[in-house]
Amino acid sequence: MNLIDGKKIASDIVDELTQKVSAIDGNKPCIAFIRVGEDPASVSYVKSKNRTAEKIGITPLLFTFDNTISQEELFAKVDALNEDPSVNGILIQSPLPSHLNEQDAFNRIDPNKDVDGFHVVNAGRVVQEDPDGFVSCTPAGIIEICKREGIKLEGKHVVVLGRSLIVGKTFSLLAMQKGAHANATVTVCHSRTRNLKEITRQADVLVAAIGRPEMVTGDMIKEGAVVIDVGINRVEDASRKRGYKLVGDVNFDEAALIASKITPVPGGVGPMTVAILMKNTVKAYALQNA
Amino acid sequence: MNLIDGKKIASDIVDELTQKVSAIDGNKPCIAFIRVGEDPASVSYVKSKNRTAEKIGITPLLFTFDNTISQEELFAKVDALNEDPSVNGILIQSPLPSHLNEQDAFNRIDPNKDVDGFHVVNAGRVVQEDPDGFVSCTPAGIIEICKREGIKLEGKHVVVLGRSLIVGKTFSLLAMQKGAHANATVTVCHSRTRNLKEITRQADVLVAAIGRPEMVTGDMIKEGAVVIDVGINRVEDASRKRGYKLVGDVNFDEAALIASKITPVPGGVGPMTVAILMKNTVKAYALQNA
Repeated sequence: MNLIDGKKIASDIVDELTQKVSAIDGNKPCIAFIRVGEDPASVSYVKSKNRTAEKIGITPLLFTFDNTISQEELFAKVDALNEDPSVNGILIQSPLPSHLNEQDAFNRIDPNKDVDGFHVVNAGRVVQEDPDGFVSCTPAGIIEICKREGIKLEGKHVVVLGRSLIVGKTFSLLAMQKGAHANATVTVCHSRTRNLKEITRQADVLVAAIGRPEMVTGDMIKEGAVVIDVGINRVEDASRKRGYKLVGDVNFDEAALIASKITPVPGGVGPMTVAILMKNTVKAYALQNA
Repeated sequence: MNLIDGKKIASDIVDELTQKVSAIDGNKPCIAFIRVGEDPASVSYVKSKNRTAEKIGITPLLFTFDNTISQEELFAKVDALNEDPSVNGILIQSPLPSHLNEQDAFNRIDPNKDVDGFHVVNAGRVVQEDPDGFVSCTPAGIIEICKREGIKLEGKHVVVLGRSLIVGKTFSLLAMQKGAHANATVTVCHSRTRNLKEITRQADVLVAAIGRPEMVTGDMIKEGAVVIDVGINRVEDASRKRGYKLVGDVNFDEAALIASKITPVPGGVGPMTVAILMKNTVKAYALQNA
């Protein structure tokens, strides 16, 4: 069994981007973060994205707003960033407070600055296989892992557990696209699927993004399959100081005996997300300066 | 075996829309057709859509242009129709001459008037499961057949042959959506799929949209499956006056012995397309007048 080191892959991408950005004369790529409220997870995510941007040489701008911000105020900020030619990418950190419609906010961003890939136009571009679209970071990160680990999808049976917009459904669209790192036969399973095990056992590549701790057991995996675990679940663990541990959607110990390659949790798909966000930002810069 | 009568279903939809439209006081729904050039198939399609609109009481407007029209002229017409509040739906008949980019033309239409469902925003709305989006007519027609024939997709294994934008991929997205007439486990197969027969034989509902005459043979179908044949292929037939006959992607005689329900070609999915276009136009009218 071969452990896929997502941290290493993400760090390679960051290094490549650092080189690329250092070669840019004049204005560097710039990403603007919008954070509403002080949700501790959001604060920490944005901080980490900010840090990675700085490391690469991408200029980060951070705009924080009170939880009570109106839609008009938020949209006015987005409009101003859309108009500003020095800003290449815009990210609105999810979740927003409940009085704001998140999809409407994402759709307010110029689709060509939507480096998080949540705009309806970028969802459509994935369907239409437009290479100038922005793909949301987790599914794009899984494709990147496959590329760099030599996991060929062409003609393979890829089984995706979960049909969420941000992972399962979008990844299934990427895997079924035409092209060298796609061309897979794709099955999408979810909570309504019958005979789940019968289907998952056919997977050459099994992607678990269903949000249920360790639900994929060894008997659901074909000998030699590649297992990509997107789940990040907290389960109680009294032996740990913080009282919980993080586990994926896959029972790692069982899967490790059967899979040819597997992503751990943490340290698998998770670290890819910020790296791809930065890749999207450099892509946005390139497209806007083409 | 139960033959699915697409002509009858389409005619029921047209009757329902006729009733609905006759109950509208004042301005009736209006669809504008744009046809470029005199391609005989395009002429005939637009004529048929025009006729059905008239029958329902939808006002059809037809704008025809010479093959040499520039993109600017075409876009100016689209812009004018976008601006015109009396026009609810706009359809640009495909194919356009090769000097015009078809997707750019579709994207010029106001997405809320895009009753053909080819705008990138409407592709994105299908992914995001936005009920106010417009779904392209053939995949939406297959869902409508399932609804009206009591073919439940929930928890079923739907296998789609073909990943085209206008049929296979979009239908797969519809079938995997959350909701009463969806919730299917979906597998998308195509030219790169290995062990095709092994996969198609798992289908409770098999949708063939691959454009290869009679490629789905009886041994590829599970006993009792529902078979939806989207293919329309011309094959030589010297015994016919016109020298060819139309066949689907399914070997009908073989499939008829095994399937529980099957759509014929012609007279299956084909007639649904115009009916759904009209349904989309009435929906656009309702949304624009809400």
